[in-house]
Amino acid sequence: MAPIVLRFFTDFFVYETTKSVVVKSWSVGIINRVVQLLIILYFICWVFLHEKAYQVRDTGIESAVMTKVKGLGSYPSRVMDVADYVAPPQGSSAFSIITKLIVTDNQTQGRCPETDDTFTCTTDDDCMNITGSHLGNGIVTGTCLINNSSNITNTKGQCEIQGWCPAENDQVNVSVMEGVENFTIFIKNSVRFPLFNVTRGNFPSSINKSYITHCNHDPIHHPFCPIFKVGDILKLMNQNLSKIASKGGEIGINIGWKCDLDHSVDMCNPQYTFTRLDAVFEQSSVSKGYNFRFAKYFQSPGGTEYRKLHKAYAIRFEIIVSGNAGKFSAVPFLINLVAAFTSVGLASVFCDIILLNFLQGAEQYKAKKFEEVSSVQTVSEKKTLPGQPKVNQSDGKEL
Amino acid sequence: MAPIVLRFFTDFFVYETTKSVVVKSWSVGIINRVVQLLIILYFICWVFLHEKAYQVRDTGIESAVMTKVKGLGSYPSRVMDVADYVAPPQGSSAFSIITKLIVTDNQTQGRCPETDDTFTCTTDDDCMNITGSHLGNGIVTGTCLINNSSNITNTKGQCEIQGWCPAENDQVNVSVMEGVENFTIFIKNSVRFPLFNVTRGNFPSSINKSYITHCNHDPIHHPFCPIFKVGDILKLMNQNLSKIASKGGEIGINIGWKCDLDHSVDMCNPQYTFTRLDAVFEQSSVSKGYNFRFAKYFQSPGGTEYRKLHKAYAIRFEIIVSGNAGKFSAVPFLINLVAAFTSVGLASVFCDIILLNFLQGAEQYKAKKFEEVSSVQTVSEKKTLPGQPKVNQSDGKEL
Amino acid sequence: MAPIVLRFFTDFFVYETTKSVVVKSWSVGIINRVVQLLIILYFICWVFLHEKAYQVRDTGIESAVMTKVKGLGSYPSRVMDVADYVAPPQGSSAFSIITKLIVTDNQTQGRCPETDDTFTCTTDDDCMNITGSHLGNGIVTGTCLINNSSNITNTKGQCEIQGWCPAENDQVNVSVMEGVENFTIFIKNSVRFPLFNVTRGNFPSSINKSYITHCNHDPIHHPFCPIFKVGDILKLMNQNLSKIASKGGEIGINIGWKCDLDHSVDMCNPQYTFTRLDAVFEQSSVSKGYNFRFAKYFQSPGGTEYRKLHKAYAIRFEIIVSGNAGKFSAVPFLINLVAAFTSVGLASVFCDIILLNFLQGAEQYKAKKFEEVSSVQTVSEKKTLPGQPKVNQSDGKEL
Repeated sequence: MAPIVLRFFTDFFVYETTKSVVVKSWSVGIINRVVQLLIILYFICWVFLHEKAYQVRDTGIESAVMTKVKGLGSYPSRVMDVADYVAPPQGSSAFSIITKLIVTDNQTQGRCPETDDTFTCTTDDDCMNITGSHLGNGIVTGTCLINNSSNITNTKGQCEIQGWCPAENDQVNVSVMEGVENFTIFIKNSVRFPLFNVTRGNFPSSINKSYITHCNHDPIHHPFCPIFKVGDILKLMNQNLSKIASKGGEIGINIGWKCDLDHSVDMCNPQYTFTRLDAVFEQSSVSKGYNFRFAKYFQSPGGTEYRKLHKAYAIRFEIIVSGNAGKFSAVPFLINLVAAFTSVGLASVFCDIILLNFLQGAEQYKAKKFEEVSSVQTVSEKKTLPGQPKVNQSDGKEL
Repeated sequence: MAPIVLRFFTDFFVYETTKSVVVKSWSVGIINRVVQLLIILYFICWVFLHEKAYQVRDTGIESAVMTKVKGLGSYPSRVMDVADYVAPPQGSSAFSIITKLIVTDNQTQGRCPETDDTFTCTTDDDCMNITGSHLGNGIVTGTCLINNSSNITNTKGQCEIQGWCPAENDQVNVSVMEGVENFTIFIKNSVRFPLFNVTRGNFPSSINKSYITHCNHDPIHHPFCPIFKVGDILKLMNQNLSKIASKGGEIGINIGWKCDLDHSVDMCNPQYTFTRLDAVFEQSSVSKGYNFRFAKYFQSPGGTEYRKLHKAYAIRFEIIVSGNAGKFSAVPFLINLVAAFTSVGLASVFCDIILLNFLQGAEQYKAKKFEEVSSVQTVSEKKTLPGQPKVNQSDGKEL
Repeated sequence: MAPIVLRFFTDFFVYETTKSVVVKSWSVGIINRVVQLLIILYFICWVFLHEKAYQVRDTGIESAVMTKVKGLGSYPSRVMDVADYVAPPQGSSAFSIITKLIVTDNQTQGRCPETDDTFTCTTDDDCMNITGSHLGNGIVTGTCLINNSSNITNTKGQCEIQGWCPAENDQVNVSVMEGVENFTIFIKNSVRFPLFNVTRGNFPSSINKSYITHCNHDPIHHPFCPIFKVGDILKLMNQNLSKIASKGGEIGINIGWKCDLDHSVDMCNPQYTFTRLDAVFEQSSVSKGYNFRFAKYFQSPGGTEYRKLHKAYAIRFEIIVSGNAGKFSAVPFLINLVAAFTSVGLASVFCDIILLNFLQGAEQYKAKKFEEVSSVQTVSEKKTLPGQPKVNQSDGKEL
């Protein structure tokens, strides 16, 4: 039995390698090396240095954002502070600064004329037709209210609605809150790259209190100051404050973390960019700007509930955090190294085409490269088979 | 020195290519070409046409969502508008439409009996045992309050609590707000693919005001209308309005942006799908539906604070935006082209197995394909080594 | 024409395979097999078993989170319930539990002295200099108010501001709400992997009502209980309740779904981890903790609006959901199988280096592996070219 086992091992532990043809030709040799050089350069410069393919990447960051707005807005008769104009007040990553308010005071449940022009009527029938409309301030009762007081006989009236009365009239002109450009937004953002267990904050802990109470973010001079002046943000985006304050709008503050953790973690700092999120709807004929309605509810000493309805035009800020960190890892490094090595071998595909088709002496190279064997015959029969072409024959031995 | 340099260059600029055996066999030739064809077809049809592997993809979209609900809900005695039933009012991507309210009026800080059945008692000891319970409406004081008024002597009472009094009784039957099926949700969604710097809105800017005031989204007839009727959404999901309005629930509106930016950017439009987000808890015996508590605070002229507690059953909507855009890029195109070319070469692995094992004349092919060289001997010694098998010898020269 | 077509087909359906040199050497044969074994082991153990590269992965989950806080907090004089201390009340994935409140009562629009120390003054000029400051509670009018009442003549006063009066003094010491450690957070989280259309909830539907009313999450004993005691969370994070309750803070509850959908879907369960999100700012000298301001608005019977300003210190909770599910798919399986096969071939690169350089008889192997052909000459001319080295000649025929 021993010889069989030996034979098996002798057969198993053989090493099989491809037989190669070495072509001593300057032209194809230079082409070969140049192509190989290009492939190596591509891998070194693009894949390894630019794309950092030797790193494992983490883009699934955990991010926490806290914001705090400061500043005083003023109307002719009153001063608004943070508790008045920031909604919601919790300092989350999305918040609105209310810049214009249309207030409808002392609303109670009842019946009253609708204010909107589309609800004008001359007879009750006009109003019966639009019962069930959901675009007004209340449910249309079907009665046309014509105000005949003050000696003038109107022929036009307004349909009566049931709901909160008096109905809101949002066509009035109201002034915009002043001082918004001086408001500051303080952003506290901490991110964690779970893959590397690296946690970073958006300002260094070395920053001192006096700096932070006086600094304003500036992309060039104060890139790490976490306090943003609304006016500066709008200027960086080429937006007009009075327009956005009057119509409302949405602004995105993008915090981009692009970190190479092979370097010091202290160099992992955020980059801030600003975009007008509703820019794509600017050209639209409908629904420009941003507004929402909310109410404050009161109760009279008698127990009747009444409310103050607010239509608020606001600038909405959204803090959008994205992260992308990379760190050296053996697995992607090896994979790309192997890919580089195998790709270098691809030069020969290109050179083979040149060698076997376009080079002087191509037939000779073909004869050397290809060795022919015909099928289904034994070696002795082979030479006499008539149907087989003998063009590619390579060995003198067979002739 | 010149000859050495020349020799070095002569050696360096050689081109090395594999020596090939050309097998003129119909069977293996056809198998080879068929396998190659299958591999090419796989790459063309699946990798390139279906998976669009020649594109670089961007899934990390920046998205901004603004919502606006319209509609009037009605209770027997009162009409509710947006400011009443939408929470939070800011029109963010997640909002609730309150459909049922259990109101507890005129609560003040004090002591009163608990309402829940689990707090029934006959003696103070019953209540002492559950001091520290956090499931009631207030802190259990340890006193059992037995209502003996009205001539009937009760033996059962309720434990006294300290907190907001009177305690809420959420077991009462209250009616559901009517009209929810006619509410409309207007969604303004802008997305940006940062990699391609392409920004899109969820409705074309060409859409006109009269269309938008009258259209309702419909997957077939009005796929780009950004206004969604609550009743339509529920119908598309096969949900029952009265059930969801009474218990509360969570609905996801998915906006999927799947864009091929090699085509016109105008064809990059969103697709809307709707899911019941809490569907997985439907079978659960606990915590069906969705509700939350909030209070409105009032102050009496004397300065006492009192509040109106609301247990709100609501339909919560969440707008979930996902994006996936692709655009031709040289790098993935080249990588996949190279992968395709090298994969075609894999056909030979399969064909070699057939050729060398299952084909008639396999021994002859083996002899042609493999050329043997034994180890550790010089050329002259080789022929006399006894331990080496001579099966695979390939050249007549060596015999 | 028939013979030409036949010839074309004969030429097309040939099979071309590399000619191989079989080296019968124990050393290089063993090295070859060992390297191949290592590569195969790497693919089986790491790529297939550990990294599960045969699966297609879905990380873009759709997640819906609903939270509900329960518990009663107590101040010396009053009891707070959920409607009082949770903000916003809607039970979304981010919410704050207010633990400390600095209340400024009965604020109306008017003029009054600023409270902060930085606004002390002796003359009006001191106040004129800081007109326009946005850090106070109102707009500095430029008047210095010196309180000379009560027989004592002060030389120090406070600048007058216009705004909500009296101004808030947030330097007062107020007590922290008690009972926070016993609050429970109920989390309902449903996730959907859109690629596989698999939906999962964070607790099994088999869970019964009595279990859920009594269980508290515990990583070891109750890993699927969806109710988290605040005290337990803080203990797991080694945080001090009284410190976080007094200064405020941010806590992240991470729900990680790592699912292998090749196994039963019932084994796809969440893992909960807790992090202090603002940990990175702990060392910072500025802006520790978390607080925000909000106001409750009232109206006196006469119609004057007044408000109650709250500076709320709170623990903010953010539920962060991440998902990663994998399932067998033919495409990645085939791609990695092909990669494994081609990588096994890389063993020969390594062995070739050994064979041709370091092994005894390397010259002999070289002669067998490389067959030389020189350029630009016909076969007959080749032998007489003087400049070409004849070292690598491989065939006896040419000598």
